[in-house]
Amino acid sequence: MCGVFGIYGHSEAANLTYLGLSSLQHRGQEASGIGTFRGDTLKVVRRQGIVSEGFNREAIDALAGDRAIGHIRYSTSGGSFLRNAQPLSVNYRHGDLAVAHNGNLLGADTWRARLEELGAIFQSTTDTEILIHLMARSHGTTLRDRVIDALSRVRGAYSILFLGASGMVAARDPWGYRPLVMGELDGATVFASETCAFSLIGARLIRAVEPGEVIWVTDRGTESIFPFETPPHSAGRSCSQCIFEHVYFARPDSHMFGHSVYETRVRSGRILAKEHPVAGDIVIPVPDSGIATAIGYSEASNIPFGMGLIRSHYVGRTFIEPSQSIRSFGVKLKLSPVADILRGRSVVVVDDSLVRGTTSRKIIEMIRAAGAREIHLRIGAPPVTHSCFYGIDTPTREELIASSKSVEETARFVRCDSLGYISREGLLKSVNDPDAPARFCTACFDGNYPEDPAEEPPRVAIPE
Amino acid sequence: MCGVFGIYGHSEAANLTYLGLSSLQHRGQEASGIGTFRGDTLKVVRRQGIVSEGFNREAIDALAGDRAIGHIRYSTSGGSFLRNAQPLSVNYRHGDLAVAHNGNLLGADTWRARLEELGAIFQSTTDTEILIHLMARSHGTTLRDRVIDALSRVRGAYSILFLGASGMVAARDPWGYRPLVMGELDGATVFASETCAFSLIGARLIRAVEPGEVIWVTDRGTESIFPFETPPHSAGRSCSQCIFEHVYFARPDSHMFGHSVYETRVRSGRILAKEHPVAGDIVIPVPDSGIATAIGYSEASNIPFGMGLIRSHYVGRTFIEPSQSIRSFGVKLKLSPVADILRGRSVVVVDDSLVRGTTSRKIIEMIRAAGAREIHLRIGAPPVTHSCFYGIDTPTREELIASSKSVEETARFVRCDSLGYISREGLLKSVNDPDAPARFCTACFDGNYPEDPAEEPPRVAIPE
Amino acid sequence: MCGVFGIYGHSEAANLTYLGLSSLQHRGQEASGIGTFRGDTLKVVRRQGIVSEGFNREAIDALAGDRAIGHIRYSTSGGSFLRNAQPLSVNYRHGDLAVAHNGNLLGADTWRARLEELGAIFQSTTDTEILIHLMARSHGTTLRDRVIDALSRVRGAYSILFLGASGMVAARDPWGYRPLVMGELDGATVFASETCAFSLIGARLIRAVEPGEVIWVTDRGTESIFPFETPPHSAGRSCSQCIFEHVYFARPDSHMFGHSVYETRVRSGRILAKEHPVAGDIVIPVPDSGIATAIGYSEASNIPFGMGLIRSHYVGRTFIEPSQSIRSFGVKLKLSPVADILRGRSVVVVDDSLVRGTTSRKIIEMIRAAGAREIHLRIGAPPVTHSCFYGIDTPTREELIASSKSVEETARFVRCDSLGYISREGLLKSVNDPDAPARFCTACFDGNYPEDPAEEPPRVAIPE
Amino acid sequence: MCGVFGIYGHSEAANLTYLGLSSLQHRGQEASGIGTFRGDTLKVVRRQGIVSEGFNREAIDALAGDRAIGHIRYSTSGGSFLRNAQPLSVNYRHGDLAVAHNGNLLGADTWRARLEELGAIFQSTTDTEILIHLMARSHGTTLRDRVIDALSRVRGAYSILFLGASGMVAARDPWGYRPLVMGELDGATVFASETCAFSLIGARLIRAVEPGEVIWVTDRGTESIFPFETPPHSAGRSCSQCIFEHVYFARPDSHMFGHSVYETRVRSGRILAKEHPVAGDIVIPVPDSGIATAIGYSEASNIPFGMGLIRSHYVGRTFIEPSQSIRSFGVKLKLSPVADILRGRSVVVVDDSLVRGTTSRKIIEMIRAAGAREIHLRIGAPPVTHSCFYGIDTPTREELIASSKSVEETARFVRCDSLGYISREGLLKSVNDPDAPARFCTACFDGNYPEDPAEEPPRVAIPE
Repeated sequence: MCGVFGIYGHSEAANLTYLGLSSLQHRGQEASGIGTFRGDTLKVVRRQGIVSEGFNREAIDALAGDRAIGHIRYSTSGGSFLRNAQPLSVNYRHGDLAVAHNGNLLGADTWRARLEELGAIFQSTTDTEILIHLMARSHGTTLRDRVIDALSRVRGAYSILFLGASGMVAARDPWGYRPLVMGELDGATVFASETCAFSLIGARLIRAVEPGEVIWVTDRGTESIFPFETPPHSAGRSCSQCIFEHVYFARPDSHMFGHSVYETRVRSGRILAKEHPVAGDIVIPVPDSGIATAIGYSEASNIPFGMGLIRSHYVGRTFIEPSQSIRSFGVKLKLSPVADILRGRSVVVVDDSLVRGTTSRKIIEMIRAAGAREIHLRIGAPPVTHSCFYGIDTPTREELIASSKSVEETARFVRCDSLGYISREGLLKSVNDPDAPARFCTACFDGNYPEDPAEEPPRVAIPE
Repeated sequence: MCGVFGIYGHSEAANLTYLGLSSLQHRGQEASGIGTFRGDTLKVVRRQGIVSEGFNREAIDALAGDRAIGHIRYSTSGGSFLRNAQPLSVNYRHGDLAVAHNGNLLGADTWRARLEELGAIFQSTTDTEILIHLMARSHGTTLRDRVIDALSRVRGAYSILFLGASGMVAARDPWGYRPLVMGELDGATVFASETCAFSLIGARLIRAVEPGEVIWVTDRGTESIFPFETPPHSAGRSCSQCIFEHVYFARPDSHMFGHSVYETRVRSGRILAKEHPVAGDIVIPVPDSGIATAIGYSEASNIPFGMGLIRSHYVGRTFIEPSQSIRSFGVKLKLSPVADILRGRSVVVVDDSLVRGTTSRKIIEMIRAAGAREIHLRIGAPPVTHSCFYGIDTPTREELIASSKSVEETARFVRCDSLGYISREGLLKSVNDPDAPARFCTACFDGNYPEDPAEEPPRVAIPE
Repeated sequence: MCGVFGIYGHSEAANLTYLGLSSLQHRGQEASGIGTFRGDTLKVVRRQGIVSEGFNREAIDALAGDRAIGHIRYSTSGGSFLRNAQPLSVNYRHGDLAVAHNGNLLGADTWRARLEELGAIFQSTTDTEILIHLMARSHGTTLRDRVIDALSRVRGAYSILFLGASGMVAARDPWGYRPLVMGELDGATVFASETCAFSLIGARLIRAVEPGEVIWVTDRGTESIFPFETPPHSAGRSCSQCIFEHVYFARPDSHMFGHSVYETRVRSGRILAKEHPVAGDIVIPVPDSGIATAIGYSEASNIPFGMGLIRSHYVGRTFIEPSQSIRSFGVKLKLSPVADILRGRSVVVVDDSLVRGTTSRKIIEMIRAAGAREIHLRIGAPPVTHSCFYGIDTPTREELIASSKSVEETARFVRCDSLGYISREGLLKSVNDPDAPARFCTACFDGNYPEDPAEEPPRVAIPE
Repeated sequence: MCGVFGIYGHSEAANLTYLGLSSLQHRGQEASGIGTFRGDTLKVVRRQGIVSEGFNREAIDALAGDRAIGHIRYSTSGGSFLRNAQPLSVNYRHGDLAVAHNGNLLGADTWRARLEELGAIFQSTTDTEILIHLMARSHGTTLRDRVIDALSRVRGAYSILFLGASGMVAARDPWGYRPLVMGELDGATVFASETCAFSLIGARLIRAVEPGEVIWVTDRGTESIFPFETPPHSAGRSCSQCIFEHVYFARPDSHMFGHSVYETRVRSGRILAKEHPVAGDIVIPVPDSGIATAIGYSEASNIPFGMGLIRSHYVGRTFIEPSQSIRSFGVKLKLSPVADILRGRSVVVVDDSLVRGTTSRKIIEMIRAAGAREIHLRIGAPPVTHSCFYGIDTPTREELIASSKSVEETARFVRCDSLGYISREGLLKSVNDPDAPARFCTACFDGNYPEDPAEEPPRVAIPE
């Protein structure tokens, strides 16, 4: 998962991008970057780590200009982080260009090989760079046309911003996997992955960028285009928005695909309480993402809510792990149990999702060590049985505990006294939208992939 | 407010001190330091900022030795931070010495002037250094005796650790203003400001260091001494522990003065709901310190609890403030409202305390801008009318809004629809200890100072 | 001017490259970089500033592998330094590739435009990247063939190293503008811009890479190829080696194009004394590059040699310039006069070259302020009247004082009592090689350019 | 060896101190520091490493005020460098005070012990801090009187600057071991260890501070005082200035004790040629300190001078040593031989001094490996047989090769073909002052110590 932010036509473009990225920081902590144009010249600063560590006043001041795009990158495996940080920046025959991409293209390896056969040179190992090469070979005469030309050739997930000397392009793939919203601030046009970025800087939300929409922003205003063929949505779907954004990624104060994330989570907690009731003494969330779901569970079950786990604010990326000769602290560095409200109690623990099971197992061990009599784990998402190919960095299927273990086996593995997941239907209902089943992708729960991730890209001609 | 940690007799002394200080980080973020002995030689590393930023693996590895003390310092005004960071370290006629102090001595200026008349030279502007000068002039033959000699001459608040080549001394002033607990880990003796440090490293809590107790730790074991005259406790008090530790400073998973901080706060919320009921639609805390109180208020009032304010984890000390030309963000960088659960509602906002009123005013403005219909502010502490002289960095009396404004005037200032503080009696009751009134200092609420902060130190002879 | 170093087949490849680059540091201080292969994977570290500031033990250790190339870059105008630092590194269809280049290609802008028309994307603004794009489009099946294919298409100056997973290529353009030598260390093949790099690491000099030679180094050994057509050398030249390497760039302990730099300079001083005698009291060099020439002048003239200017070792790139309100220090920060041997004397000042005249003017002002009675400036190079297009960062013609001012006018400008330049013939004679006139480029003194810098590259087909 | 600089009454005090320290950088590279007063408040910045690395524009700007002292510290053994960096700064009963000291007090351990018995606490392990404690206990009513009181009680070497809110004191011990000069710039009074600092900033040399003189600088002007008893100078001496300043420490463009350092060295080279003639082919210096001596040797012997060793400008403190598996580079990183002028020749190598012999041995090995036929080592100082107790960090007697080995044995150890030291009388004669024997300390050559380093300080009363 990643986050993007863009602003066109504001004298404080870099500073506002810095603030916007800060409010999207929960979407990635590996690297951050900002690119701005001054006249025809692009300046990009990319840094490892979170925005507030990577950028200082001097860096922001150096990013002059009235248009900017920014990106924050999720932590992934692999070493040469900064090489893959975004915005990607290049100089091609149409001048300087910067790109910030949230999502994941399908068939990237094939595309890369084809372009390399034609002499293309890559500076990063990201799929995003494929789009730049397609643009460099496009015969389109404007940035807008080159972007549309390139995007027409690929499949997969993209909520993406392009910034050139002539304007900015915002685009969302026809399936609409990842979010992207458009707003306005002091006459400037603003884009962001989530509405919480608008709230922080005081921008007004105009609307979501629609699935399949391309928005072309220049000094003359904005233009909305729907240049792509309607994709063959399976199973009566009109689009394939990621339900996991509601479950886990988005900040609770964001509106996601038109719905309040906080309220969706509270409702999912209520439904979860109905689907998997238990006679507990206290309901505690795994903070922070499990809080709203736990509140909903508590309300519907009438079991008191408590903050039985405290999250430390001071354990960051640079924390020194204790040496081997002293005991393993594991998850304790980030979470601490409040033993006084756990001791001797039957505790209902509410978490947003259960993927590998290893973290849940440590949390349950910690709660039990604090004296809990019984531990009932309730999960605000169905079992994750399939990998995501549309922009979430889920593990391989083998690592997904639910792909090979039953609920009972999983409960034994994490050592809880009972385990209950919300159903797929319950989760979709919690969005409070009757069209939710036709609008959300739930492939990670049911394997019903909107686009076949294994299908090879068609052998279309690449312009030369 | 500050935090101290010490460990005697563990091969991983510096590493465990690093972990212990990390768990006390909420007590101060300005500076941190660790001192260790290897043979007769003290090594001290002090850094600005939080522990995880200031110390890396190399710094910890350089701090060899099996005994260590550490300190974290609260942000105060004034520029030359590092000079005043602790542990203070000196070389005097008895060798190297390190000191870590939580608290505040009374009459420090007078003491300093007297010692300077005798030729003393100060390296810092801290009151703590006075103790080292008194020790340097003491005729005591052991570190223990020199510490007792020095502490006997001063008044005020100290929970303090001394580390020399011959042993470690832990001491708490006779009034017991600030906390200090003793524990055990793998045979080593451990001290910390709060029990949460023990929970993290897996140490066993033995007991609190008693008011007026001095504990002398050497290779031969620990010795407990009560060398000071019983102070003339006013108003039937047996000691004067700081009630504000429960209200605000301590981490909710700590036991403070023998009582669960979390549970005290929940109880205070229940009492607050009784003392200041209101017909609200939702109870929201100001995170993080107001959460447990809000849970208690919600329980007792049957008004649903909600996380209406989201706290950002990524806004640290190094955050770049937006430039003046864009709007002031104020408290928004750290807290974001969840508008969906506030809009059109009557909101009960629960905060731990109200000191100057300026932050509350911004929070209320933000909640109102998110659409709240009514805002009722409830405070888990009585009005703060008097400054603290025992180790909390409260503002001067003039800056304390409750020292000059009535509750109604304060409500107008912060622009809430109603304002209710818990009563002094209610707060003491929430500790759930019948002796609480005789054991806690509430001077900041009632001006009843255990020791007169203006009284000059007696003109006793200083050894030469 | 830049410097390159490469080593193939040594377990300490990165460390030796670090040492080799250090000994070439006089060829550039702007940036440095090292690239190594481990298996098929290239790792490159590039840093601003000099090698010893940019690389620490950790950086060297991270550069594992038994083959490495390195580059040091001369300070040029323009801001985004690191982007243009070398080795350049890319991933193209034949895997990872690193390139380190000393020299300057002709017609680079035209080439860049042509390639961009074909969709090429550039990450730097260097001419070197053109070669990579030509290689990416080459149908050559080995790295060797792709390098030859690319180099066959360009003109200009290159002493260049390519490192891929399959081997290393070293090449020198057919005119042989810039130096490149080959050596051997512990069985490994080594390349460097100057022999002083071999002296430091204890490598044995094998020979210079010849003009027009390509050397292909793999695990099976080295192969020498002369793939390029013999260029139409003008005026009976067999090659066009840069005479300025002897005058200024090379370290005096290097052998350059087969001749001792130190001895060439001493001889030039002797010839200069013959061509421009003067009745002075003392001969002083402008250190460090004027020392050997001044020694030769002193010998031939029998005027005593003295170190009348002291060079500071401690004024580096990071020196803070004095604020405007205190007097301008100019060249005084780097050079200090020894007034005691200048006062009242007629001083012969020997410098390696006179380009703009501004520095000479400051030096002469400083010597005169120290009390010199007369100042006679002698220059170890002819007047520089034309810009270099083959890799030296000379100013534009307008800035070259000798392009518009006579010797007398120049003397008045720099305020010396007399001024004498060595003649072009004298300089060529000082190399002590009867073929020198046919082997050296002296275009900066006579405008006789080996290749026309303004000629457009031929419109040959670029493979696709 | 260290360096000091002070300026009183200039609006650019810190900036000029920065420049002055830079020109004294050859006197020490371990640490540097600057202290300034603004009103009554002292601000001190101390940094490890050389001035240009430790101080940036921001640091200088933070040091506001019109008076400043600075210090640069020589590299010594021991770890906690910054603790001992100067200016030392304290707050004592007369306010803030900063001290910068070049020299070494005798009996420092005894003084320290006595003061500690009286309760003194030390922040550093330097002898300088003793003076501050004596000042803190002085009954003197002005800074001037307290300085004189403190200095009257100690013996040993000090050229020292004190800066307080009321004025600046410059003092030199009655023996005058270490240099200190006074100058004037724009009406401000300036002090420095060497005149080269004045040359750089354009200050006018007024005169040397005399042995035993104290100069008191305030807004009302300067006052010269000679408060100390004339010391019992041994052997008809009038003072005991360090001859090694001429031989090695001072910069050749400085005047030291009234004489040109450069000229003294040239004369010593001439005398050395007379005392130890040899039929060599070339005379080469060990740069930089041996250059002037070698020039004198060349002149007197009529053997040509050559720069046979090149000194690298780029090998600083942070250089990574090659790993063990590649050959030891030793002195080669800093010095490179110019083989072309050494090969087959009989080489006369001139160095300033020979202390341990280990470096000379490496240099000779390097010259021999470069092909020299014979190597004759000539030293511009007599054999160093005794340690210095007056401020030079010489090794213990055991490490001084001349304390246990004859000249022939030393020649065998360093593996030269012949070895000749200048005589003590020859060296004194080279100063060109008939009174030199009565004015210079030559204890390191003859053991004739001006003050007995082992004598205990007299048991005078310390005021309390």
